[in-house]
Amino acid sequence: MNSPGDVLGLISRGDADTRAELARLTGMARSTVAQRVDTLIAYGIVEERDSGASTGGRPPRVLRLDTDDNCVLGVDLGATHSRVALMDVGGALLADREDPLHITEGPERVLGRIDERMHELVAAAERPLHAVKAIGIGVPGPVEFATGRPVNPPIMPGWHEYAVPEYFTARYPLDVLVDNDVNALALGEVRHGATAAGDLLFVKVGTGIGCGIIAGDRLHRGAQGSAGDIGHIRVPGSEAVQCRCGNTGCLEAVAGGAALAARLRAAGVAAADGRAVVELVDRGDPLAVRLVREAGRDIGDVLAGLVNFFNPEAIVVGGVLARAHEPLLAGVREAVYQRSLPLATHRLTVVPTATGEAGGALGAGRLAIDHVLDPAHVDTALAATPAAGATAAAR
Amino acid sequence: MNSPGDVLGLISRGDADTRAELARLTGMARSTVAQRVDTLIAYGIVEERDSGASTGGRPPRVLRLDTDDNCVLGVDLGATHSRVALMDVGGALLADREDPLHITEGPERVLGRIDERMHELVAAAERPLHAVKAIGIGVPGPVEFATGRPVNPPIMPGWHEYAVPEYFTARYPLDVLVDNDVNALALGEVRHGATAAGDLLFVKVGTGIGCGIIAGDRLHRGAQGSAGDIGHIRVPGSEAVQCRCGNTGCLEAVAGGAALAARLRAAGVAAADGRAVVELVDRGDPLAVRLVREAGRDIGDVLAGLVNFFNPEAIVVGGVLARAHEPLLAGVREAVYQRSLPLATHRLTVVPTATGEAGGALGAGRLAIDHVLDPAHVDTALAATPAAGATAAAR
Repeated sequence: MNSPGDVLGLISRGDADTRAELARLTGMARSTVAQRVDTLIAYGIVEERDSGASTGGRPPRVLRLDTDDNCVLGVDLGATHSRVALMDVGGALLADREDPLHITEGPERVLGRIDERMHELVAAAERPLHAVKAIGIGVPGPVEFATGRPVNPPIMPGWHEYAVPEYFTARYPLDVLVDNDVNALALGEVRHGATAAGDLLFVKVGTGIGCGIIAGDRLHRGAQGSAGDIGHIRVPGSEAVQCRCGNTGCLEAVAGGAALAARLRAAGVAAADGRAVVELVDRGDPLAVRLVREAGRDIGDVLAGLVNFFNPEAIVVGGVLARAHEPLLAGVREAVYQRSLPLATHRLTVVPTATGEAGGALGAGRLAIDHVLDPAHVDTALAATPAAGATAAAR
Repeated sequence: MNSPGDVLGLISRGDADTRAELARLTGMARSTVAQRVDTLIAYGIVEERDSGASTGGRPPRVLRLDTDDNCVLGVDLGATHSRVALMDVGGALLADREDPLHITEGPERVLGRIDERMHELVAAAERPLHAVKAIGIGVPGPVEFATGRPVNPPIMPGWHEYAVPEYFTARYPLDVLVDNDVNALALGEVRHGATAAGDLLFVKVGTGIGCGIIAGDRLHRGAQGSAGDIGHIRVPGSEAVQCRCGNTGCLEAVAGGAALAARLRAAGVAAADGRAVVELVDRGDPLAVRLVREAGRDIGDVLAGLVNFFNPEAIVVGGVLARAHEPLLAGVREAVYQRSLPLATHRLTVVPTATGEAGGALGAGRLAIDHVLDPAHVDTALAATPAAGATAAAR
């Protein structure tokens, strides 16, 4: 309590911006406040400047995050693209870039490209490379969050148990957080989107279907970090549909982008993937519109049970298929409002994502920022720094 | 930060038990620590005693919760019984009592009986009545937690929007927390049972079926407080079964105790309710055993989806039907392990509750204790107390 990390929390949340304010809020002696603040300044995360508000006397000096020297990289890896965003720890986007990039090329090549982008973006934003303190990465598959290793990711050959963080930590003095892409999307939505709900589900409908869960303002990852894996929940009445997982009737096999494209092809309509399905919907193809609406109903059937169970404030729908959000959301709403309990749907909103293409990268960047500003992380880092160690240990 | 409430947190969690320890942990000046501690002692929640460890010099004085003068009442209201437990704020059970009590008698009579029990229990435990600082009550129906009012509770005629807290707050200077009974059961399980999981589902299988959710060590109530209402999630393949809610195929209509008893009666076996079903299972009635196992499978079918979504560490099964836990849990496990993803079931445990009959009352008592020791609550109460107000305002 009132460690340097806690003091950083007060400054970064905007609760205090002067030494006097910190003393008032914490009850600490001025000398103790000075010790904590000096430690944070020496560590480089906080800076103190003249406020400029000269009223005759000596102007008060103002404390704030040193955003010039503390940045993060947010990385969104998809099946066939990547987006990399450079942000400062205040959350401002400094530069970003999207590229085609096939995740099937394997971790060494893909992460090598991300490494190149990092150099380009810091150069473009005129920041030194050592200002990048952490990298957050969202990947399209299950991840053991504690170690940052993908676990049997179906569409990422070569990535199983690959030590993603070590690729960067062996080269640079920074930390790396790896998470499932839908978790990054959910975080991006509540921090950079239009829906700042405390209990929210972000449903990504792409080739597969996944869900990021915000419970009580925090990401809910579950006991093994696999929470939100809704693509293999059974859709009532779809037992005849075989899924690649070995079970039948899974949501993903019924309503995912790949399943819809296959059904269009079976009807003689050319459609390679979910993107093609959306293009058909945009052109008004009646079969495509009907299939997307049905997919929305099937997704809604599964969400109806989850709404009863979890009672979210909002459901946000993203992913490639959400670009056809009119028929998709009509179907989702239809099933949810029919099957869920009135108390749970009373104030529920079902909306398309508002973060656009950059949501995943911004959310991944937020993972990294939350880590850099985490009081426990800062205190641990200070305890390991000889110069600042004595002060940190004395807390 | 470091308000009197925060200092109470350090003492109640056992992080600090002397003024010197508080000064070391918080960085506050000794005089500020003294101010905070004296405020808490004057408020009556903390006491300071000689440690007794005399080593020649003056023995250090030890701070601890004043458990003699700070108690709570935990109340578990069922359809046909009540259990009332008197606990101190350290969590120790001082006295408890179970009675037959029909919730259909309405709030005035039921709460009147709870009031009588409170007087009897404090007398039995030799505590003054004013030592009871809060009452936690679990009720068998949906509740708006913020106001403590039941919302359209199906088996509680006369309770809709009844102001339960006001019944007591009009008579005594204490606070009242009202919650759904399964939330109390979930809290009782993680604090007093055998399963201290951070992510846990407590499934109560009685006449109806409900679920208490612990997410990241906290109760998850959802946006409208209706989270965990799994009794009306659709069971695949049961669309022909009509539910009293107006929908078809609801879990409760398929696998609840009332549904099983009705099915036994239809087969010519006398069974009034879930309790009778359990007695038949205990006597080895083959139809009853088969129906309970099938009910377990149906519950497991719904839980399989929730396991994928929520990734709990443990599922704990309670309620009347859990007394027949061998066939019930066999059915649940069968369906969950067949339908859920391997990563999510890898370390999942499915067990019967370990808190026994008292779980609901102990959990309701924990709701009250958490409220009494909540830093924000203590600081608010202090600010409203003229004597201590000046100190609290100075934080």
